[in-house]
Amino acid sequence: LTPLSPGSTIGILGGGQLGRMLAIAAAQLGLRCHVYCPDASSPAFEVAAKYTVAPYENTAALDAFAKDCDVVTCEFENVPAATLARVSTQCVVRPSAHSFAICQDRRAEKELAVKLGIDSAAWRDVPTLAELDTALGELAVPSILKSRHLGYDGKGQARLDSMSSTSRAWAAIGNAPSILEALVPFAREVSVIAVRDAGGNFAAYDVTENIHKGGILHTSRVPASIAAETAQSAVDIALRIGNALGHVGVFAVEMFVIEEGGAERLLVNEIAPRVHNTGHWTIEGCVASQFEAHIRAVAGWPLPDTARIADAEMTNLIGADAEAWAAIAAEPGAALHLYGKTEARSGRKMGHVTRLRMYSKPV
Amino acid sequence: LTPLSPGSTIGILGGGQLGRMLAIAAAQLGLRCHVYCPDASSPAFEVAAKYTVAPYENTAALDAFAKDCDVVTCEFENVPAATLARVSTQCVVRPSAHSFAICQDRRAEKELAVKLGIDSAAWRDVPTLAELDTALGELAVPSILKSRHLGYDGKGQARLDSMSSTSRAWAAIGNAPSILEALVPFAREVSVIAVRDAGGNFAAYDVTENIHKGGILHTSRVPASIAAETAQSAVDIALRIGNALGHVGVFAVEMFVIEEGGAERLLVNEIAPRVHNTGHWTIEGCVASQFEAHIRAVAGWPLPDTARIADAEMTNLIGADAEAWAAIAAEPGAALHLYGKTEARSGRKMGHVTRLRMYSKPV
Repeated sequence: LTPLSPGSTIGILGGGQLGRMLAIAAAQLGLRCHVYCPDASSPAFEVAAKYTVAPYENTAALDAFAKDCDVVTCEFENVPAATLARVSTQCVVRPSAHSFAICQDRRAEKELAVKLGIDSAAWRDVPTLAELDTALGELAVPSILKSRHLGYDGKGQARLDSMSSTSRAWAAIGNAPSILEALVPFAREVSVIAVRDAGGNFAAYDVTENIHKGGILHTSRVPASIAAETAQSAVDIALRIGNALGHVGVFAVEMFVIEEGGAERLLVNEIAPRVHNTGHWTIEGCVASQFEAHIRAVAGWPLPDTARIADAEMTNLIGADAEAWAAIAAEPGAALHLYGKTEARSGRKMGHVTRLRMYSKPV
Repeated sequence: LTPLSPGSTIGILGGGQLGRMLAIAAAQLGLRCHVYCPDASSPAFEVAAKYTVAPYENTAALDAFAKDCDVVTCEFENVPAATLARVSTQCVVRPSAHSFAICQDRRAEKELAVKLGIDSAAWRDVPTLAELDTALGELAVPSILKSRHLGYDGKGQARLDSMSSTSRAWAAIGNAPSILEALVPFAREVSVIAVRDAGGNFAAYDVTENIHKGGILHTSRVPASIAAETAQSAVDIALRIGNALGHVGVFAVEMFVIEEGGAERLLVNEIAPRVHNTGHWTIEGCVASQFEAHIRAVAGWPLPDTARIADAEMTNLIGADAEAWAAIAAEPGAALHLYGKTEARSGRKMGHVTRLRMYSKPV
């Protein structure tokens, strides 16, 4: 496993804010980035040594891209499988198509958890509307219909209670193969941001506690208000998932914490085969961020020190939230990040702010 | 004083590692950078939204550059005065040409210190070789002949003792107008990295202790081993210099610490009207780095929080030092920075490493 030399080129499929922060981390390490994205106004282009604007289906553009790169990675999980397959014929792709195949499909994620003996919310496969009534009879209401593919930030989901119309819910999630999942009365949501290299080495950041609003992440906080053993279990779950995927790079595992008789139990919710919004606090909160961790792993470099420096709270700036940038810029201890997006559509992640709370850890 | 909106363009004259780190800091804040540099392989180009390769004397290229930018700044102090003058006719330049005029000229720096009543090493003006003998008679040997212009990293300097040939020293520094400066028996070297905005607001980072080897910075450490009152005096000196220059942006003041009878005394050595190698530790050691501080000041944004998070030690990777990148990448607590330079010439700054030592400051 020879590490890529400084000056090598990392290809990134996808040009959003995650790609932007990956490109910045790569530049710090003396690695060049080539970003590939169909959107001509991609935030990542502005910090990349090179970029290609082309559809994910343009095989000639993909071939030229792959030829220019020493390794290719992705900043979002819904890269078309055919795109990954095409690039993989000409360049190492990390993580591999297998990680994406599992994480693009809620049913495959559920099946992986079952296989590993990791708890998740009760669920039923719902390939067509016909199966929805049966599934609803088997699971307690309320429950949530989730499309197997292309769901993120609360999209592709419909809540069902005893009064709901199943056909309306089926239409709402796009008439697509789905799963039905029991609604879990969780005490809190947490996530583990972990990184694994091609040699199977593994490291994780401190468990993060997350608050969603309207299906979109609002705030992430470290440390999470959970017991030390629960945190250890969460990291162990991430380790087993990373190994099962043979994942190379950063990945995130979102989990629910259930409180039962004073004890805490974890249910896996979602796996993201990439850097994750709940890990943005690592930019200021750690010596090496999740973005640097991902670049190191895909470049075959040693995994980074994931030790936390400070208590931190990250808040997303969504849509019009970013208009408060000047006030945030004036706030002591606040690190403002804006992604360079010109149009502040409702629900669009425009930036984030990380507030460091306390510095406590001697090294 | 209206701050530039996110999405505005900051022009940077000069494309070296300082420009590269400035561009990264600007991107984090959602500001675009346009880098102007004659060298087609400039490290800063790889992280800039836009760049221009043209000589500093190309007025058409300068005009197009100025037209594209909302404010222009510099990453090195030896930008030709005519270049600054040309750009200033079409765009706000921060800091102004005045800061550069003073800091490009060792004699002007000395005269400023005299005017402000700030101590520096004894010196004499040496406009021609003829004056060198007189000056040498007045100052104690050993002393150092320093060319007034274009000296950095120990270049343009010649040490003189009682046995030296004055004509050989004069030739060594390039037969150029110079000053002769008494060699100071200093206990240590320190620097203040400070930032000042157009409204006269001022902030400084913790005083840094520096070790040079062969005229080139080797290591910077915070905290410096000096008394609290000495540190306060150092910051006060920087404040007075910043005000006298009417400086906008980051600047650095290098000083010698003299120990006399148990007390510490400061002598100003050099002023740099820009972000500075001795401030690189602020990237990991502070909530907001010197690079972010400079971008904020030139963009009219609020000055940043300059509080220090951790003890830190920055070591330059010069020439072949950078070959140790893999070992440094494997070291816990070490933040590796490589500048993307392809050719590791002797004496060339290829990167740096910042090692965080302790986290101590509650906020």
